[in-house]
Amino acid sequence: MSKEITSREENYSAWYTDIVLKAGLAEHSAVKGCMVIKPYGYAIWEKMRDQLDLMFKETGHVNAYFPLLIPKSFLSKEAQHVDGFAKECAVVTHHRLMNDPNGNGVVVDPDAKLEEELIIRPTSETIIWNTYRDWIKSYRDLPLLINQWANVMRWEMRTRLFLRTAEFLWQEGHTAHATAEEAIAESRTMLDVYAEFAENFMAMPVIKGVKSENERFAGAIDTYTIEALMQDGKALQAGTSHFLGQNFAKAFDVRFLNDKNTDEYVWATSWGVSTRLIGGLIMTHSDDHGLVLPPKLAPIHAVIVPIPKASAEIDDVANNLTAQLKQKGFTVKYDNDEKRRPGFKFAEYEMKGVPIRIGIGARDLANGEVEMARRDTLEKSQVKLDHLAQTVEETLEAIQQNLYARSKAYRDHHITDVRNFDEFKEVLTQKGGFVRAFWDGTTETEEKIKEMTKATIRCIPLDSKEEEGVCVYSGKKANQKALFAIAY
Amino acid sequence: MSKEITSREENYSAWYTDIVLKAGLAEHSAVKGCMVIKPYGYAIWEKMRDQLDLMFKETGHVNAYFPLLIPKSFLSKEAQHVDGFAKECAVVTHHRLMNDPNGNGVVVDPDAKLEEELIIRPTSETIIWNTYRDWIKSYRDLPLLINQWANVMRWEMRTRLFLRTAEFLWQEGHTAHATAEEAIAESRTMLDVYAEFAENFMAMPVIKGVKSENERFAGAIDTYTIEALMQDGKALQAGTSHFLGQNFAKAFDVRFLNDKNTDEYVWATSWGVSTRLIGGLIMTHSDDHGLVLPPKLAPIHAVIVPIPKASAEIDDVANNLTAQLKQKGFTVKYDNDEKRRPGFKFAEYEMKGVPIRIGIGARDLANGEVEMARRDTLEKSQVKLDHLAQTVEETLEAIQQNLYARSKAYRDHHITDVRNFDEFKEVLTQKGGFVRAFWDGTTETEEKIKEMTKATIRCIPLDSKEEEGVCVYSGKKANQKALFAIAY
Repeated sequence: MSKEITSREENYSAWYTDIVLKAGLAEHSAVKGCMVIKPYGYAIWEKMRDQLDLMFKETGHVNAYFPLLIPKSFLSKEAQHVDGFAKECAVVTHHRLMNDPNGNGVVVDPDAKLEEELIIRPTSETIIWNTYRDWIKSYRDLPLLINQWANVMRWEMRTRLFLRTAEFLWQEGHTAHATAEEAIAESRTMLDVYAEFAENFMAMPVIKGVKSENERFAGAIDTYTIEALMQDGKALQAGTSHFLGQNFAKAFDVRFLNDKNTDEYVWATSWGVSTRLIGGLIMTHSDDHGLVLPPKLAPIHAVIVPIPKASAEIDDVANNLTAQLKQKGFTVKYDNDEKRRPGFKFAEYEMKGVPIRIGIGARDLANGEVEMARRDTLEKSQVKLDHLAQTVEETLEAIQQNLYARSKAYRDHHITDVRNFDEFKEVLTQKGGFVRAFWDGTTETEEKIKEMTKATIRCIPLDSKEEEGVCVYSGKKANQKALFAIAY
Repeated sequence: MSKEITSREENYSAWYTDIVLKAGLAEHSAVKGCMVIKPYGYAIWEKMRDQLDLMFKETGHVNAYFPLLIPKSFLSKEAQHVDGFAKECAVVTHHRLMNDPNGNGVVVDPDAKLEEELIIRPTSETIIWNTYRDWIKSYRDLPLLINQWANVMRWEMRTRLFLRTAEFLWQEGHTAHATAEEAIAESRTMLDVYAEFAENFMAMPVIKGVKSENERFAGAIDTYTIEALMQDGKALQAGTSHFLGQNFAKAFDVRFLNDKNTDEYVWATSWGVSTRLIGGLIMTHSDDHGLVLPPKLAPIHAVIVPIPKASAEIDDVANNLTAQLKQKGFTVKYDNDEKRRPGFKFAEYEMKGVPIRIGIGARDLANGEVEMARRDTLEKSQVKLDHLAQTVEETLEAIQQNLYARSKAYRDHHITDVRNFDEFKEVLTQKGGFVRAFWDGTTETEEKIKEMTKATIRCIPLDSKEEEGVCVYSGKKANQKALFAIAY
């Protein structure tokens, strides 16, 4: 089975698609640009969603649900926002089909034209802030800390499974605050939540930073981002958190009486991560044998394969181990399907990235041991039965740590400081990854660099030191270094 | 606060809407027919979803996600299906907006017209069976037991919060089987799951039955249903499970090689419950003081209110109780907000249906006790501190049971056997509820009865005895009794 996938070296993009399809994560649907998330892929999303949801609730947020459809006029109320989204909107114009009187089957009923067109939400700031107007009257109603799990749609022309699809699943937090300081603090808190999730659960190291004006969310004052690095040296924007200032409050006239009894516009944030994270997860850890999953997000932690087939003794060991590991919160699959041979099963679970595989054969069992294989390193070892549950647990922890350490070493090695534009271009084409360089802060320079190298400013890292220097492109005075990369 | 809501006797419909709005469950949105599910309402939905999801997984199902949009041509492939849904479809015709060259703001870009219109899913049989064609080749691929949590849209003209909205949230199971028997068994299993959920978690008694041909799902061979009774004597269809035969397999050409190596069409089921259940939950238990919630679905199990305000001693008792109950899996809210008086808080939590309220005042505390109030009976009692956690736990269990017993007694009292059409009409208008009567099995009779009384056949109960009799309307020979009611 592993022979079927393209290697990363041969064709990175084909390798990625092969894994998505052959590990059974997702596939293209009959609707252009929309994907079907298959059960195994959805199980990973459920793990992500449950953990993120817990972290949102621990930071004081509650969930709600707002309409899928947004009146066209709402989108237009925030000028930058509509510029950012109008070009990729699915537009609902009618509410009924009918049988064609001329016998051409089912057609749109021209009498069911909507007075105002409705847009399938590309993001929900507008409909939510239109609702908040009624919910917020005084500072006592603030902060409002609300999140929504939903599907959204952006009509993308060039799509890739998980990374860029017309419809995707995500969460969008929309909070309302009495002061700018509080809203900024909220947007930073949620960026920290995203970074913690990426690093501790996805085992994917990220750089926290702020976007340049050019790369900001349409309607934001500041966009914070977590940026990850994929194995082909390209950056992936994995999550963003926006300080929206009073832009949406002004567009939708959301005011409150502050504690000095003065009328004031409300301050806003929004923040989101999506099924795109699954794309990042795949590209951070997987290898030429297939998917590699960090144990904390794996739908199955360990698979037990009888060799060559099940017996009463093997059943006992398998059931016993399953029960012990279940108690510790791990999911174990005992694959005793006799229609498929062990070698086939090994390849399949390798492809699906199950962190640990345990093979149980009669000879090993006679010695009181079984064979354990780690998916991350492909190492095999003999494990005594009386240590088995504990060894599996420790190994899962070791895999989680190893995946993070490995991807962090790779990422750290691919942050390169450059002093001039020749170096900039050389590093970008030869080595890839993040290029850190002085930037004069102008959109003009940023766009020139993009034009010449395809690299964009991923962020100004939040932990940057204040430095004085010379812009890598323009030679003008610069007081900050930006992180450039070619990005997904 | 309770003074603000209309009583059931005065105006049942206004009472319902008052509760939805004043308990903060949902509200109408700016988009006609679509609701905003507010955080407290969504928290109830989360409880429902989590429990149902657990039950689906325990019965072998996995989740997946299919596209929101369905090509118009798919809908037409199953003749009855399109008849059932074509009249209430949101139709996407364009994928871009643009600035009007005449300065009229943002308009639909005529150049971005889709070649084929897309429908926002009213239900997903068509897109899913189109996908299953590639997933199912042999009997080894069966059964396929997949569920989806999603939003769907049916363009309803007359909407009511939760009960009937253009967009709603639901789950839809779509399973594929090698034999008719297995598919029928699946549809019955899921009906049992729904009934168990309704009775054991919602504390809402239901009657399991099969629909008459007239009331079947568009495209089904048989539709099974759970029917509940609301306090105004109207029935509510709370969940349905469909045996779809080979209809969708034939429409989408989904065949498999059976174990005799013969090509055969696949057998199907689908089943769903939606946010409508929240409407049923409200109308089953609530009273003229507001919402009443069964503890198993209550976002907050107990609220602690200091009287008249918090003190170090009261904080201790509250924190101690919260910690003890949290360990047992209960959610406790300690409302020590000094800006609001106890009376205000009492009314609010009554409105929100929090099952238990504990008032802690200095005098009671000196006696080593607190006051506990039950939301279901409005009874108050003094509880010794050293029994408090245990008493709360036992009382929550008692409330759950009492709500079920109370609504079951009401429901049972409102199933009336009638022998002739005069009785039928009299019971329906005077007493309401379910009317059980012999029916000759014809759609003609069913429609006549509906025309004359507004009552529809809710179901033929699954536990019906075989009986011979005379149709209550036509006087013709009948061999089954049907359950009639006026329904939501």
